[in-house]
Amino acid sequence: MTYGQTAAARLQQIAQASASSEGITRLPWTTEHRVALAEITNWMEDAGLTVSLDAAGTLIGATPNPHGKPVLLIGSHQDSVPSGGAFDGIMGVALGCLAAKVLEARVDTLPFALEILAFADEEGVRFPTALIGPRALAGTLDPAALEMTDRDGVTMAEAMAGFGVDPSAAHALARDPATVFGYVELHIEQGWVLETRDLPVAAVSAICGISRFEVSIEGETGHAGTVPMTGRRDALVAAARIISLVAEEGASLGTLRATVGQVVVRPGAVNAIPSDVRFPLEIRAESDAAREAFEARVLSRAGEICDKADCRLTARRSYVQPAAACAPILTRAFEDAMADCGIAPLTIPSGATHDASAMADLCPIAMLFVRCRGGISHRPDEHASAGDMGVAIDVLVRAIERLGQTG
Amino acid sequence: MTYGQTAAARLQQIAQASASSEGITRLPWTTEHRVALAEITNWMEDAGLTVSLDAAGTLIGATPNPHGKPVLLIGSHQDSVPSGGAFDGIMGVALGCLAAKVLEARVDTLPFALEILAFADEEGVRFPTALIGPRALAGTLDPAALEMTDRDGVTMAEAMAGFGVDPSAAHALARDPATVFGYVELHIEQGWVLETRDLPVAAVSAICGISRFEVSIEGETGHAGTVPMTGRRDALVAAARIISLVAEEGASLGTLRATVGQVVVRPGAVNAIPSDVRFPLEIRAESDAAREAFEARVLSRAGEICDKADCRLTARRSYVQPAAACAPILTRAFEDAMADCGIAPLTIPSGATHDASAMADLCPIAMLFVRCRGGISHRPDEHASAGDMGVAIDVLVRAIERLGQTG
Repeated sequence: MTYGQTAAARLQQIAQASASSEGITRLPWTTEHRVALAEITNWMEDAGLTVSLDAAGTLIGATPNPHGKPVLLIGSHQDSVPSGGAFDGIMGVALGCLAAKVLEARVDTLPFALEILAFADEEGVRFPTALIGPRALAGTLDPAALEMTDRDGVTMAEAMAGFGVDPSAAHALARDPATVFGYVELHIEQGWVLETRDLPVAAVSAICGISRFEVSIEGETGHAGTVPMTGRRDALVAAARIISLVAEEGASLGTLRATVGQVVVRPGAVNAIPSDVRFPLEIRAESDAAREAFEARVLSRAGEICDKADCRLTARRSYVQPAAACAPILTRAFEDAMADCGIAPLTIPSGATHDASAMADLCPIAMLFVRCRGGISHRPDEHASAGDMGVAIDVLVRAIERLGQTG
Repeated sequence: MTYGQTAAARLQQIAQASASSEGITRLPWTTEHRVALAEITNWMEDAGLTVSLDAAGTLIGATPNPHGKPVLLIGSHQDSVPSGGAFDGIMGVALGCLAAKVLEARVDTLPFALEILAFADEEGVRFPTALIGPRALAGTLDPAALEMTDRDGVTMAEAMAGFGVDPSAAHALARDPATVFGYVELHIEQGWVLETRDLPVAAVSAICGISRFEVSIEGETGHAGTVPMTGRRDALVAAARIISLVAEEGASLGTLRATVGQVVVRPGAVNAIPSDVRFPLEIRAESDAAREAFEARVLSRAGEICDKADCRLTARRSYVQPAAACAPILTRAFEDAMADCGIAPLTIPSGATHDASAMADLCPIAMLFVRCRGGISHRPDEHASAGDMGVAIDVLVRAIERLGQTG
């Protein structure tokens, strides 16, 4: 059995730890979480790692480190979205464990120790927050997060205590940056760039920054039969022009992504001219400057569109998260490792947030994306092949070896 | 007090017959309806008319007609939308009564008798049907309409019986077309053409035909961060292009009106590419041929837009009502009467349906629109001035006199 096949078999096995029969539903601090950690403990022990659970619920498998070498952290998350897939998150943990197994016999020759991390909660489904594990390590944990409640009124602190960890100790987990060599994460791409390019893996240049705006357009309603079209203040027509503009401008700008995912129309009748339209606008880019320039240009042109339609535009920024650049030294190691493995090195941005986003506050980060079928994620039919996962293990091992030579 | 001022005072008085304190709410077969008919009875008796209530709930005020002359019908409706205005519908009844009063002394010299009609239900708010009064006269009443229920489960037949009319006799109301000279209706414009042209009244060329389509666009969802913009099958972007197209094409076509009044987006999340968008498309035109040509062109171009976006378009026609042309002989009388009164004759289409739409199945029809402030209707601030209503009475009286000379 190849390491890729072992990864596939292990992921198939751990997929049983699910609250739903359709797809995988594994929320933090649940029975499914507990079952999954037992499986991961096996993976870690199989690689000769010493296993512990920290106060933020992160399962850690560590190589021996008697001399206190800096640590290269390799992690991802154990949780899923509801009825999600068997690869998002957990695959990174499985591949990290197998890479550690490959390296087990020679890990003491490396200038750093290894820790494989299985974070509790990256998807943020159960509580209106996420990334507690990496935030605890980075020292950026907001105490208020522990008091957030799930839909049954259970606080995160209560859920954690019920799971057997001491949430009050989570703040003490912050690592000294001097003790950390870096953080790397393997994850499915969740897009189709690798499939289109016929490549198994790619390095990541940066985790995109995100802006969200609540856009509101105010016009005037009227009878769809009696009010002439010329002179109408139709808020939906103005919104449609803005949505078209966002798509055209966005597509012309390389890796930037701009999306309108919802529209609410009032009064919302078949024979009433729309007076009020609201929609969220989300923009993601690996460069904060490029994102901000795009925002300014699109909002300025949206203003012109609304002026022309005699409508009033309001755009309130509801969320912003700056981009997190990957560390060139780590990313270069992935690229060189790909070349070593005979794979054309490709580096692409990550449009999604990952545990690495929070780890960037602690140390240099890097990510390796693995091709996923059809670009599909967060669905039961999410899939990465055993072959591609095998390549990802090879590339990770080779990258660690290269970092060991330069580090 | 001028006749226009009398009309204003009467409309202010009858506005008290309302179930809501904000705006007028007068649904058929209610206490408010009963109170309104008592008022209208006064208006009719003041004009020397003989008052009766037919089996469809239409209050009729008739001039003496001992020799069985054909009848010129002058009508509109007593009901309102919820929290509507004090003019839509009821104004036509009030102005008809005052014209009859002006003509009272010489009505026997006309080659036709007069009947003023106050129909029960034009807005179709209480029951999912409307126009029972004119349909009964035209012989087009669908028996199934009487079994339709309001939101309390009361059938229209039960509501009518409770009001004191015999719904089973409504079918016997159909008039012999040979006994009817024509039907004319005065109504607020519900648009701003007259306000823009600074005119008090206009004749109507036709009541627009209406088509409604349920448009559905099917694309593919995906993560707004991870799926590149090029290659997305974003159903909302395709819908936005179609909505823009409808507005541009529609505005270029004179009196045609095309409206998208609602949009439903799925899955409808800030960070999910829309996979499914549905919206109703409504098209109104005075020419059925022009409407159908527009429909064919817009749907064909919508298909091209969806093909380009790799989305699937479905457009199902959910409703169609052909245009009802006004009779040139009646419309000409209004135009000549306007000229007699020193008003530049203007003739415009009606984008809204009226009682006249159903009366067109019985006899020649015509309508006279009265300017309303800001083009506003179906709202508490709906308003027509006493001066303009006075002009409308003058024009109606003069038109009846002209018809009497030619008729």
